[in-house]
Amino acid sequence: MAQDLEAAPRIDVTTFGDRLAQAVEHKQSQVLVGLDPVTDLLPLELAGDAHLGRAEAADACARFCCGIIDAIAPYAVGVKPQLAFFEALGSDGMRALEEVCAYARTADLIVVADAKRGDIGSTSRAYASAYLERREDREPLADAMTVNPYLGRDSLEPLLAACRREGAGIFCLVKTSNEGVADIQNLALSDGRPLWQQVARLVAEWGEDLVGERGLSSVGAVVGATHPRSIGEARRLLPRAVLLLPGVGAQGASPADVARAFTSGPASALVAASRSVLYAFRTTEDDWRSAAAAEAARLRGEVWAAAGW
Amino acid sequence: MAQDLEAAPRIDVTTFGDRLAQAVEHKQSQVLVGLDPVTDLLPLELAGDAHLGRAEAADACARFCCGIIDAIAPYAVGVKPQLAFFEALGSDGMRALEEVCAYARTADLIVVADAKRGDIGSTSRAYASAYLERREDREPLADAMTVNPYLGRDSLEPLLAACRREGAGIFCLVKTSNEGVADIQNLALSDGRPLWQQVARLVAEWGEDLVGERGLSSVGAVVGATHPRSIGEARRLLPRAVLLLPGVGAQGASPADVARAFTSGPASALVAASRSVLYAFRTTEDDWRSAAAAEAARLRGEVWAAAGW
Repeated sequence: MAQDLEAAPRIDVTTFGDRLAQAVEHKQSQVLVGLDPVTDLLPLELAGDAHLGRAEAADACARFCCGIIDAIAPYAVGVKPQLAFFEALGSDGMRALEEVCAYARTADLIVVADAKRGDIGSTSRAYASAYLERREDREPLADAMTVNPYLGRDSLEPLLAACRREGAGIFCLVKTSNEGVADIQNLALSDGRPLWQQVARLVAEWGEDLVGERGLSSVGAVVGATHPRSIGEARRLLPRAVLLLPGVGAQGASPADVARAFTSGPASALVAASRSVLYAFRTTEDDWRSAAAAEAARLRGEVWAAAGW
Repeated sequence: MAQDLEAAPRIDVTTFGDRLAQAVEHKQSQVLVGLDPVTDLLPLELAGDAHLGRAEAADACARFCCGIIDAIAPYAVGVKPQLAFFEALGSDGMRALEEVCAYARTADLIVVADAKRGDIGSTSRAYASAYLERREDREPLADAMTVNPYLGRDSLEPLLAACRREGAGIFCLVKTSNEGVADIQNLALSDGRPLWQQVARLVAEWGEDLVGERGLSSVGAVVGATHPRSIGEARRLLPRAVLLLPGVGAQGASPADVARAFTSGPASALVAASRSVLYAFRTTEDDWRSAAAAEAARLRGEVWAAAGW
């Protein structure tokens, strides 16, 4: 009988949800620091004042991200490198991404690749291999990645297989933090519900058989912290999902806005902040590392208090 | 008065639609060859029979893609590198991608980066910079890229700005070629229409002010050739869009299935075939280059005839 690889029995791995729950309790933090390095915004000591070529810019971005990792590691449960900013520096940028992800791992941080990928099955297998799978010669680049649901379940199957086999996680876009949610995500379906609520239901279904011992699924959902009323509804529709909440800080949401995301446990939501932590030094007198550490520490305290555990 | 960069006046560039129309007429071809290099499927003369490290695998993929480009250049109007297969080889793979895109450009082929990216504005700017924008030291990696509409209009604005300023193009996912379209794209909206038809309307709107002299917009749409009945409907909703039609060949659609996509002109649709061209040598006695050339030539003739221009 032909063996269906996708349906192969789960090997004995700790699920992403269990690893995350453990890390959140250990760190007492639900903060995920977004790594969005932009050459023009780097501290002068890294970028210099001359124009940088691409390889030099990538080196400067890597040094910046590794410095940020050192600074925020005591206060954050993980980092979320935004792949676009590395891709903008071409192959040099991807080398920097590899270096930064490996460094975050040595600092015991969870790495969520903010990739928002979504493609048909054969291509999706290549994305799983690129970001989530262990190879003979290297660790996976990330512990989890963000994905786009527009192509439907079969497009995510290879990534779900990586969750089963490698203990990886995925965070599926449900309702994003930008104004453009009105165009598609908020469209009313024939039963009156907005589209994003149906996507939330699908995400719950896709993650059903990936719930770990701590009650959290390896299939999470991205819900913008800029829509506080939707967070409660998403929590209700997705009781087992870890909600990844971007939009706190530079995009305007506050830690109190995200409180209701945490009713499924202390690790049931992650608050992502990027620019407000990375570039905190631009609005203080502090050194860039100290400014980032202070902002991460502040956010960690506020979120932990708002979560109420 | 503050200047809005996104609304800066259009510089004097040839639009993507005009460049494409010219290229299609010159080549008498609407075929786009997908570059999906998979190390395990490469010809033995490139892959050898020993296990390849990542750098060697990336080199072999680059040599394969460049050989394919030489072979299909007389018969195809462009190539569509699928980024996932390059990303799967890490920074070495991205170096190979840069080499392959530059090589395709010297062979006068249109390059469509199959990236399916979609993210909030500040991130989307980084994607525009990564794939569509000219820099002082280099040409843009691609002439156009595929994008995902789930985040709505504001997420695509920086890419639309690249279309205006650089003469780039984007192809927005509307109805994809896989079975998973049932999960989200086919959901019925409150007025009974399937979601993908509303996405098609939005794409038409987003591309309205980017129509070139030849009547085609720089904002195209991806519609799977595996849904022949939807192609006619997409054509009606998107009279100015170039339809990018994947799914011919390995995914089962035939050139005749796509005929109705061409009613807006000979360049109003592109037929993408990947595995059936790249790996044609695996089912013939031919050398891999000759097999790819023969398959591209055959497809070009069939599509040109089906298009009826």
